[in-house]
Amino acid sequence: MAQVKNKQVLLKHYVSGFPKESDLNIVDSTINLKLPEGSNDTVLVKNLYLSCDPYMRTLMSDPKASINPRAYVPQSPLTGYGVSKVVESGHKDYKEGDIVWGITNWEEYSLIPAAQIHFKIEHTDVPLSYYTGILGMPGMTAYAGFFEVGATKKGENVFVSAASGAVDLLKNKFGYDEAINYKEEQDLNATLKRHFPEGIDVYFENVGGKTLDAVLLNMRLQGRIPVCGMISQYNLTQPEGVTNLAHIVYKRVRLQGFIVADYYHLYGKFLEFVLPHIREGKVVYVEDIAEGLEKGPEALVGIFSGKNVGKQVLVVARE
Amino acid sequence: MAQVKNKQVLLKHYVSGFPKESDLNIVDSTINLKLPEGSNDTVLVKNLYLSCDPYMRTLMSDPKASINPRAYVPQSPLTGYGVSKVVESGHKDYKEGDIVWGITNWEEYSLIPAAQIHFKIEHTDVPLSYYTGILGMPGMTAYAGFFEVGATKKGENVFVSAASGAVDLLKNKFGYDEAINYKEEQDLNATLKRHFPEGIDVYFENVGGKTLDAVLLNMRLQGRIPVCGMISQYNLTQPEGVTNLAHIVYKRVRLQGFIVADYYHLYGKFLEFVLPHIREGKVVYVEDIAEGLEKGPEALVGIFSGKNVGKQVLVVARE
Repeated sequence: MAQVKNKQVLLKHYVSGFPKESDLNIVDSTINLKLPEGSNDTVLVKNLYLSCDPYMRTLMSDPKASINPRAYVPQSPLTGYGVSKVVESGHKDYKEGDIVWGITNWEEYSLIPAAQIHFKIEHTDVPLSYYTGILGMPGMTAYAGFFEVGATKKGENVFVSAASGAVDLLKNKFGYDEAINYKEEQDLNATLKRHFPEGIDVYFENVGGKTLDAVLLNMRLQGRIPVCGMISQYNLTQPEGVTNLAHIVYKRVRLQGFIVADYYHLYGKFLEFVLPHIREGKVVYVEDIAEGLEKGPEALVGIFSGKNVGKQVLVVARE
Repeated sequence: MAQVKNKQVLLKHYVSGFPKESDLNIVDSTINLKLPEGSNDTVLVKNLYLSCDPYMRTLMSDPKASINPRAYVPQSPLTGYGVSKVVESGHKDYKEGDIVWGITNWEEYSLIPAAQIHFKIEHTDVPLSYYTGILGMPGMTAYAGFFEVGATKKGENVFVSAASGAVDLLKNKFGYDEAINYKEEQDLNATLKRHFPEGIDVYFENVGGKTLDAVLLNMRLQGRIPVCGMISQYNLTQPEGVTNLAHIVYKRVRLQGFIVADYYHLYGKFLEFVLPHIREGKVVYVEDIAEGLEKGPEALVGIFSGKNVGKQVLVVARE
């Protein structure tokens, strides 16, 4: 089998502060499109869609100075969630032609441990790219955080931070009752009081820092704060201090960190719930599509300044 | 019935920063030792033991600038937990001579709503003053935080902050494995790493600020942090910022505010558990006794600078 060209996106060096396109490198490598001898539990895949996710920023920092003990290896391809097609399989659960999603590398073809594959994709009547977003890790995170960790009940007041880049989009297209741009608010406490005169029952925390501080002043009795990320803090050398934590005592608030990996056993239940909503157009989903691996650095860097509108996807190949 | 002298401890004015003895006033008032006509649901009590508790500091601040929406009324007696003897009762559940504990006023005799009485004291073979501490609100708080909110299991690593004033006492008398003085630690993170090489499963949070920040770096997977107070923050005009909250994501930590009032339905179960331990000498309990209402300001102010050794109790009368 032929040695073929394999374009890759590498981390040039550890990053501090906001990442720049120049922190990443695009290189032409080569790969043999054949599983090496004795490659049990390894799968050769062609990458189709890659996901740009905020958590990737935490992997770009020097692990000695990071909240995340894991990190990318400088001069190696980034890793991340993606949708891929199996070219050759050394694992009994997968065969050539299967479409899968899980952790892969930012390159055209990847040799990955089968354990990095999260799920084989069974429902292909929806766009495959959705498995990087609403049907993949981010969708499952929202589902687990909202229903399992947050235990949100009908009628409760919910505040979601880092919901998306554009306020107009949130209100007019996604159907939120209200939306604000937290970066432009002078007095977030007053704004929250206006929008939530009765207080907030569930705060889906993705931001941290000043937003969390203002929310803590506005939580309702027995409120819940599922936390799966704190994007406002990822680019700071010195994180902002949260000063209002004492409020969780009087309001008996539960702040619960979680990672989606602990909830993947519910993925089947999640698909049963969300697929009909998508098919019937009851869930609005917007993607921001960048075409080609060479657009990877721009697409990834863009999510930290809110350039994307909707889920940022990078197309490597369409089949 | 005679009008009698009724010594009181009043809040002179709202306090900012550390409270001083001069923020409180001792005055001689008078009271008629007879229930007023038609005083249903009111009880006249003689106060025996008053409890000095950290939360009382939050009631001394101007409520407009405080984390606690409730506050003491300047020129009125302080309120707090205490053990009292019923002089005359306007409520069917209580009768003359009953010993009760609950919220009373810092004075010799008080006319209080029966709803402020938490429990009638049935077990009097232990010192009555214990019902301001180990058998009262603080003991019940420890029990609820440890077993209910923290869900602590045998074999887990537990860190308790603001456990008491004296390190030697904690190790030699109370039986803790190790103890540190958080005010003297230069690098609390390193100290915690040394004492908890495997990390902390349950952190009983009473302190907040820098201590919480260091603990967040040392929590174990699925760790729990019951929070019932943050004493280090009560005297600060500007609370310290907590910067390491993002760590609760990777470790899936649960930070849960609670107040003991939500757990009083377990008080009977708690007494069944703790009374035998006290009678058999299996729980070591130390009280720091101040004699007489006029010692109230000194005793109360002292707990914020760690002057007390063990539970600070103020004796108003011994029967």
